[in-house]
Amino acid sequence: MKEEIMQLTEEIISTGTEEDQVVLDLLLKGLKQKQHFDKGSYIGALLHADGEYKDQEFTITIPNTPIIQNALHIVHGGITATLLDSAMGGLVHHILPPDKAAVTTEIKINYVAPGIGKELTCKASLIHKGNKTVVTEGKVYRDDGTLIAHSTASFFIINRK
Amino acid sequence: MKEEIMQLTEEIISTGTEEDQVVLDLLLKGLKQKQHFDKGSYIGALLHADGEYKDQEFTITIPNTPIIQNALHIVHGGITATLLDSAMGGLVHHILPPDKAAVTTEIKINYVAPGIGKELTCKASLIHKGNKTVVTEGKVYRDDGTLIAHSTASFFIINRK
Amino acid sequence: MKEEIMQLTEEIISTGTEEDQVVLDLLLKGLKQKQHFDKGSYIGALLHADGEYKDQEFTITIPNTPIIQNALHIVHGGITATLLDSAMGGLVHHILPPDKAAVTTEIKINYVAPGIGKELTCKASLIHKGNKTVVTEGKVYRDDGTLIAHSTASFFIINRK
Amino acid sequence: MKEEIMQLTEEIISTGTEEDQVVLDLLLKGLKQKQHFDKGSYIGALLHADGEYKDQEFTITIPNTPIIQNALHIVHGGITATLLDSAMGGLVHHILPPDKAAVTTEIKINYVAPGIGKELTCKASLIHKGNKTVVTEGKVYRDDGTLIAHSTASFFIINRK
Repeated sequence: MKEEIMQLTEEIISTGTEEDQVVLDLLLKGLKQKQHFDKGSYIGALLHADGEYKDQEFTITIPNTPIIQNALHIVHGGITATLLDSAMGGLVHHILPPDKAAVTTEIKINYVAPGIGKELTCKASLIHKGNKTVVTEGKVYRDDGTLIAHSTASFFIINRK
Repeated sequence: MKEEIMQLTEEIISTGTEEDQVVLDLLLKGLKQKQHFDKGSYIGALLHADGEYKDQEFTITIPNTPIIQNALHIVHGGITATLLDSAMGGLVHHILPPDKAAVTTEIKINYVAPGIGKELTCKASLIHKGNKTVVTEGKVYRDDGTLIAHSTASFFIINRK
Repeated sequence: MKEEIMQLTEEIISTGTEEDQVVLDLLLKGLKQKQHFDKGSYIGALLHADGEYKDQEFTITIPNTPIIQNALHIVHGGITATLLDSAMGGLVHHILPPDKAAVTTEIKINYVAPGIGKELTCKASLIHKGNKTVVTEGKVYRDDGTLIAHSTASFFIINRK
Repeated sequence: MKEEIMQLTEEIISTGTEEDQVVLDLLLKGLKQKQHFDKGSYIGALLHADGEYKDQEFTITIPNTPIIQNALHIVHGGITATLLDSAMGGLVHHILPPDKAAVTTEIKINYVAPGIGKELTCKASLIHKGNKTVVTEGKVYRDDGTLIAHSTASFFIINRK
């Protein structure tokens, strides 16, 4: 497979646009960084996502690159959803004890402004923590502080195997 | 940039897992296929998404690959959301006249079963078409027919520039 | 309290509009009918709600009266929500075994047309039945068949005491 | 109709429970109070709802009475929805200019604790105000401060006729 991959890479570089090269470079750097961690998803790696818990909020910031944009150069709503789900899920796992995990049972998102600018920051906070379920709120902002999406989601708590 | 990219590719192959190679191969094939079309998003290309309108439904099927899975090898909820948003958006654009476009204003998703299997198929249908807004329904199925997610979304109709 | 009630009734009739009398008459008939059943809510009685399970759907029809309308003589969105919650809850309780009950954990409603006409009919059907949760769909129609609202909701299954 | 109403009232008092009398008394007082205002809905009157805008929030408090409870003496989810829709709608109309009105296009509610206690207070605040749409948040609390429901809703702005 190695040779096939090297050849594909060369083809894409020689026939593609400059943007294609930027995207390929970003994808490769994301993959490389993922190799340094023993957990995490490819999605998280490809989005170059960095999460942090502070002041009762779980925050993830991702750079806005062509990878995550639609044909009009606006961040794809599905990526905003991925960011929200990741940040709210990150919050829930942060507050659960080590023997518990959580799965998203529902999410609702209101998109209120286009996703543009250099980066997107998602802040997740707690609405309610019950014995079986957790309800959270998530907000996504541009780097100029404009709110672009608001979300609420429910998580079901399960035992880790 | 070309040399940097070739070197990165080699590094990832030599230090990465077999799964890393599979993912890289998929990413490269997605990028290459995108070069053959004059529109479309990188997201769509990386998901290897194929859409079709038939019998009043807009259907997109994507292969289930490690790229779109979380650490537990279940499809990431954000990817399911991306698939739903893409299929419902595809439906709306299909039924709108050429001088109109639409933006998602809200989406709600209920996740009802884990996303596993060889591929995921999303079917989008119309709930209501108004003058200013369209409301749609989307369902995502495994290849064994199990429903994994149900969604409704609203779109606001705008004039194409 | 009896005399106070009789006096209040007389006052409302003498100082109120014709519509006030219609509403009062409807409220009283709802209360009276409730006395003939050993269960049910006042809300259900005041809405003159009748439920039925047939062909895998739970259907409730209510007359459209001034009681349930806003100042513009359109059915109040909260009443449409009450109707949806009641019908979807009715469906869930119908399919659960006698020792189980269910509570609504979330509901989302899209309002797509004004609630007018002689009566409203709500049809609830099943999206997914799990061990712990049930997800349902509900649609509200005018008597001319126009869809006025679409909803999805989640229920959490509990043991009856 | 007057005599029929008086007779019905007497029947309900003589054959009903004490709770039936309490409910009837509340319904009548609600109707009477509505006669003193030149606008407002019967629903608002029957819920004994009082709204107020202060500190960027629109707040409505209603007494918890048997009228609004289900068979288990917990506030009906549809009533909580009515309260949320009313408070968020009240907020939107408060911030719109006099020649504009708004209709609810979608609402989502997460129910997180049972509605019990002496009264329920709903606080509505703004998430986003656009040219065509407004997105709001609503929270319902018991009198002991416990959150029982969280909601987001969208409103479409229309011209008043």
